[in-house]
Amino acid sequence: MNGAIRIIGIDPGLRRTGWGIVETLGNSLRFVASGTVRSDDKAALAARLCQLHDGLSEILRAQLPHEAAVEATFVNRDAAATLKLGQARGVAMLVPALAGLLVAEYAPNAVKKAVIGVGHGDKKQIAMMVKVLMPKAVFDSEDAADALAIAICHAHHRGSAVARLAALAG
Amino acid sequence: MNGAIRIIGIDPGLRRTGWGIVETLGNSLRFVASGTVRSDDKAALAARLCQLHDGLSEILRAQLPHEAAVEATFVNRDAAATLKLGQARGVAMLVPALAGLLVAEYAPNAVKKAVIGVGHGDKKQIAMMVKVLMPKAVFDSEDAADALAIAICHAHHRGSAVARLAALAG
Repeated sequence: MNGAIRIIGIDPGLRRTGWGIVETLGNSLRFVASGTVRSDDKAALAARLCQLHDGLSEILRAQLPHEAAVEATFVNRDAAATLKLGQARGVAMLVPALAGLLVAEYAPNAVKKAVIGVGHGDKKQIAMMVKVLMPKAVFDSEDAADALAIAICHAHHRGSAVARLAALAG
Repeated sequence: MNGAIRIIGIDPGLRRTGWGIVETLGNSLRFVASGTVRSDDKAALAARLCQLHDGLSEILRAQLPHEAAVEATFVNRDAAATLKLGQARGVAMLVPALAGLLVAEYAPNAVKKAVIGVGHGDKKQIAMMVKVLMPKAVFDSEDAADALAIAICHAHHRGSAVARLAALAG
């Protein structure tokens, strides 16, 4: 698509980081690709963070998105799990930022509202609605479906998000 | 020092990440450098993570340490603070790992035991003992002093830590 904006959504996790790419042009939305970057849970933490970094870097090189969106993680779990998630999320935000992409953040209820129409719902509903909105979408994990939902959310909100981040950067 | 091992200790934080470099040869310990990488708290999160990344990368290029050590963060704060710290810590572990360094982790009480002699004590005591152990040490923040303490801790334990990480990597 000429003039289309290509967006990567990322659902970070130390064990599995989902990613999904969509293109938006006006009101249209097109599925491009999705997948899951996994880290080896027998490896040391630093090595696992490298695996996430390398996997995401490779996807950016292959898919060349223009903008990135990451879920602003919901933190209702124990401190050790939150710290683990934070480490993965730090890498998931760093990689597109180093590549020069603006990285927007969305609260989980904003992501749900963008795809389901209301601010609540489970992972199965999200995956189902991603298929309704983009019938050609395929994904190999719920994290990849979530990542597509985050990309769709950014497609809806990007006008104001880009302006806000540009103002912060300026 | 010929044959000396140069260690970077890192005390991660989103606002301030302390770093400290020591050289160890046999039982001797030498101060090399220390400092603090700061991120702009008015910038967006992704931009701040880039600032930490760029600052730490520059230090690795300038100082060429052989091994890295990071504190295994104590998590007794609220979830939002833990997530923030996790994100900074993800970047602080990723940067040396990408540069090919082994990255060891130490619990705070191990770090305190290495410099104070007991597993508890405050930041002032740590800074004071770093000066006792390495009279030439200078630091521009308590985070930099903590980072030197982490490097000293790794100097004491590196034999077993390197073997453990090498086993994981193999």
